[in-house]
Amino acid sequence: MMTASMTRDEFNRIFDAVCTWGRWDDGRGSVNHAGPGQIVAAAEMVVTGRTVSLAHDLDTVAGPDNPNPTIHHMTQLSDVGVSEPRANMDFIGTAYHGKSVTHLDAFCHCNLEGSIYEGVSSSAAVSSAGGSSGSVLDLAAGIFSRGVLLDVPRHRGVEWLEPGTAVGPDELQEIALEQGSEVSVGDLILVRTGQRARRTALGAWDPSNFSAGLHPTAMVWMAERRIAVLGSDGDSDARPSPVEGIKSPIHALALVAMGVPLLDNMNLEDLASMCGELGRWEFLCTVAPLRIPGGTGSPVNPVALF
Amino acid sequence: MMTASMTRDEFNRIFDAVCTWGRWDDGRGSVNHAGPGQIVAAAEMVVTGRTVSLAHDLDTVAGPDNPNPTIHHMTQLSDVGVSEPRANMDFIGTAYHGKSVTHLDAFCHCNLEGSIYEGVSSSAAVSSAGGSSGSVLDLAAGIFSRGVLLDVPRHRGVEWLEPGTAVGPDELQEIALEQGSEVSVGDLILVRTGQRARRTALGAWDPSNFSAGLHPTAMVWMAERRIAVLGSDGDSDARPSPVEGIKSPIHALALVAMGVPLLDNMNLEDLASMCGELGRWEFLCTVAPLRIPGGTGSPVNPVALF
Amino acid sequence: MMTASMTRDEFNRIFDAVCTWGRWDDGRGSVNHAGPGQIVAAAEMVVTGRTVSLAHDLDTVAGPDNPNPTIHHMTQLSDVGVSEPRANMDFIGTAYHGKSVTHLDAFCHCNLEGSIYEGVSSSAAVSSAGGSSGSVLDLAAGIFSRGVLLDVPRHRGVEWLEPGTAVGPDELQEIALEQGSEVSVGDLILVRTGQRARRTALGAWDPSNFSAGLHPTAMVWMAERRIAVLGSDGDSDARPSPVEGIKSPIHALALVAMGVPLLDNMNLEDLASMCGELGRWEFLCTVAPLRIPGGTGSPVNPVALF
Amino acid sequence: MMTASMTRDEFNRIFDAVCTWGRWDDGRGSVNHAGPGQIVAAAEMVVTGRTVSLAHDLDTVAGPDNPNPTIHHMTQLSDVGVSEPRANMDFIGTAYHGKSVTHLDAFCHCNLEGSIYEGVSSSAAVSSAGGSSGSVLDLAAGIFSRGVLLDVPRHRGVEWLEPGTAVGPDELQEIALEQGSEVSVGDLILVRTGQRARRTALGAWDPSNFSAGLHPTAMVWMAERRIAVLGSDGDSDARPSPVEGIKSPIHALALVAMGVPLLDNMNLEDLASMCGELGRWEFLCTVAPLRIPGGTGSPVNPVALF
Repeated sequence: MMTASMTRDEFNRIFDAVCTWGRWDDGRGSVNHAGPGQIVAAAEMVVTGRTVSLAHDLDTVAGPDNPNPTIHHMTQLSDVGVSEPRANMDFIGTAYHGKSVTHLDAFCHCNLEGSIYEGVSSSAAVSSAGGSSGSVLDLAAGIFSRGVLLDVPRHRGVEWLEPGTAVGPDELQEIALEQGSEVSVGDLILVRTGQRARRTALGAWDPSNFSAGLHPTAMVWMAERRIAVLGSDGDSDARPSPVEGIKSPIHALALVAMGVPLLDNMNLEDLASMCGELGRWEFLCTVAPLRIPGGTGSPVNPVALF
Repeated sequence: MMTASMTRDEFNRIFDAVCTWGRWDDGRGSVNHAGPGQIVAAAEMVVTGRTVSLAHDLDTVAGPDNPNPTIHHMTQLSDVGVSEPRANMDFIGTAYHGKSVTHLDAFCHCNLEGSIYEGVSSSAAVSSAGGSSGSVLDLAAGIFSRGVLLDVPRHRGVEWLEPGTAVGPDELQEIALEQGSEVSVGDLILVRTGQRARRTALGAWDPSNFSAGLHPTAMVWMAERRIAVLGSDGDSDARPSPVEGIKSPIHALALVAMGVPLLDNMNLEDLASMCGELGRWEFLCTVAPLRIPGGTGSPVNPVALF
Repeated sequence: MMTASMTRDEFNRIFDAVCTWGRWDDGRGSVNHAGPGQIVAAAEMVVTGRTVSLAHDLDTVAGPDNPNPTIHHMTQLSDVGVSEPRANMDFIGTAYHGKSVTHLDAFCHCNLEGSIYEGVSSSAAVSSAGGSSGSVLDLAAGIFSRGVLLDVPRHRGVEWLEPGTAVGPDELQEIALEQGSEVSVGDLILVRTGQRARRTALGAWDPSNFSAGLHPTAMVWMAERRIAVLGSDGDSDARPSPVEGIKSPIHALALVAMGVPLLDNMNLEDLASMCGELGRWEFLCTVAPLRIPGGTGSPVNPVALF
Repeated sequence: MMTASMTRDEFNRIFDAVCTWGRWDDGRGSVNHAGPGQIVAAAEMVVTGRTVSLAHDLDTVAGPDNPNPTIHHMTQLSDVGVSEPRANMDFIGTAYHGKSVTHLDAFCHCNLEGSIYEGVSSSAAVSSAGGSSGSVLDLAAGIFSRGVLLDVPRHRGVEWLEPGTAVGPDELQEIALEQGSEVSVGDLILVRTGQRARRTALGAWDPSNFSAGLHPTAMVWMAERRIAVLGSDGDSDARPSPVEGIKSPIHALALVAMGVPLLDNMNLEDLASMCGELGRWEFLCTVAPLRIPGGTGSPVNPVALF
């Protein structure tokens, strides 16, 4: 387990090292790494036609990791109306950020010292009317590329990583080698910590203060490989944070410095089983956020195709 | 223009002819036609790596076709909190059925004379707590198959079909031939009526009573080809309805009889342009509904990959 | 402490004894007891001009007694717009029934064996579109009458009643005598159990299964005095229920049999202090539910005027 | 009809003249004028026991004056659950500001050049987490005082005032004299413009840009009489605004300068009838806002007691 503390200066040096500000002008940041060539190559990986959802069911029950539960109301049942056919209809509402809903973080979700990705002022980019810059609409055409599952508990031979664990780049590299996965340009890297397996076994807790994730140095490894998206069954951040004064260093590095959207609270259990069964940890990964004008992200149902 | 009226008896005969009740037992109905083989074949169509969103932006402004607008609220801005990085967060809520939101209809959305797909009682399947049968969760692993755009206005050389128009099977067949598209097993058929082009040009109206769509006889053509999903820029139904006493015959035939999910209120304008540009009307179509327990459908952002 | 069990037959006899079906035809049930004369008399009790809110703050934090927390979102801040003056605006949403929000129960909230007040079928009265009969709109003109606080913990010399306690009519009568309050026609009876004092001291629990309240025999006493409304700092029901097979006998007797609206989850702490300070336990009580068409009740802020 | 234009300087002089900053320190502003003596005196006016709601039904239907309609969903019907009695339950959600919902404006709703009442900075007082100063919680104990209806259309012998009309102090004084109402300290002044009668007769329009209300000079008259609250069937502002560069001068003067809460979109039709019938235009007026932490106001159901 690697939770070595890091000073703010060391963090800042990493921030500068991985920063991609000014490289693209279409608002999609590192998703540009997942370009047409990557999409075609990823589609070629679909050889079995099997698909796996990487999302959890939206959860309407409050709990330690779900203080603002999704609301789901039937708005019409077949007890009203006279014309045939009759309709059953519902309303879904979600404050999807947090530790429960599988969701994508757009760049304007996160700012460091007042700046979102590209150095734009957060208060200029996001008002009470929503995000005018860095919003999820920039990703409206979806994200399609090769997904690579890095299954840390499998590598360690454990069921899950204990909260507090921060996984570093050497271990990620070992896992990739072990799996035969060469992480490369435009990949969607999904890091499994086993958080949900732990939740199933031991019950829910609040991952806001106690979670397994990545060590900030892992982001240098990610940046070198020019990944497009980072996802996890947690929110990619280890807590307590390894960095002094920065509660969510991975969020800051991915969203603010690199322009790498995050996928939080993914369901990687079924995926891990499928990967183990097929003996391959790469697949076509599809992510299509809702077109929420001004949205700081979106609830999503990413799907892996093998 | 074909809006020939049809008796209830004639409709019932079509219902029986296209009915697939009892054919599958996994709750996915005709989506089973889009099996592994179809998925692999569709993925092979991705040769340019270009992607097109088939959804509209969620619309928070009320209008004739949007009486229950989506609500989007910022729940947190960077004006609160002290720890770095800071977060901007939002809430999205939508009564997504209706004529505005791009959404998928699950089978339990619709019942005819009290029965949803498979002949299950609607009141048994769907209570105020949501759908226990026929819900969108049955489609949680997503729908991936070949999409085929049938562009009716392009075929007719018009900008859009006037509301009230009901497109029949002969014309669909002509369009398919003209485009070089052989509609076949497991296809997602997307029928463009130009409704949104009309809305842009002339302003919004209420399509509940006045819309272009399909004639019920078109569903026989669809059933013969064993399509998996039917989508449209409207809701696939022509209104006033060609069928006596049945306000939404296509909904009844697709959802209740055939087990074909519907994609309503799609954005087919960009897709039509892309198809015209590339000279091909087939593509990999991806649909990943949110995992809404008990949901009668889901807002979606379907994406076409070429 | 009185938690003697009661058979369903005994309960049914009480139900019949207190039933007021057919007595009024304006949908206001026993609120008719709080007629013009009672209103004038109650207003005459306002001699100090002091007011006390009987509501709690709406609670946006989930907890054992608040699984569906109120949602409160700022919809506009002064960071948008250009015209002066600028506006800050918000959205409030609440599933107000339950054990947290101070609210009024309209008659259609509750049914026994399928019947709401007046013997109307619940499924006929309330559909997915709301209540067409027995809704809170029948009480749109508000409820104004003499309020009487019956402070049970004060009488017993304890801080609160333990959950499970069911207070019977003899004790209510003793309390009324002790306080010098003659409960009479049209009164709003507020029974303090000290539930919120206990919550403050010991933390929240789920009162759905464990609560202090009234014994069903207390409702005979209430009916004999022809009260208009019953309120409590809990929801008036003691749980585990004293009645076999009836989880919320007081709800059934008050709402279904008597047509007595309930006020649940009231804040009676400040009121108890004020009553003690002034040495009087009667006051003008005001209740003005929101005009929610089809509502099964309403969040309210009842106020006592002394 | 009086719509004389006013310069910003003239407006500023009125602002200074009516300003009460620094007079009270309890956050209730001019509601302090409605003190215990006023409450007792107002209660004495209750001699008939008749009550009139001053609110409209919450409106779930979008329209020109209701772009963000209230949402009302049944969350539970008696089609679920097994224990007796069964419950019907609902959810109510409303962005209550605007031109449809009867609501109270708290002081933090409105700021002029960045300042809310008492000169507090709006951005300091209200964040995305709600209002920490000037919120509706300061009025949690309710507002009870003498209400006075000033019925302008009745005075003019018309059914309603045309939008654009700005009523000045001389006319208010005439109306008060005519009615025999001496407006005095702590009164809740309700100004009827007939807006809702016009809406009923002619259909809805958007009062944001076209409304009958008060001329800013009327606020001097109000301030001299030390009123506690101002209400109207519109939102008290005449539009187009008589003041250059100030879209809602009455909001600015009442909320920002005077600390006078506003009651917007009241139902004054039934009240006007009752007043005419009884030949008196004064009554006990009750207003009990919901206890919304951080709320910029609240939906309310004010009630007049005669």
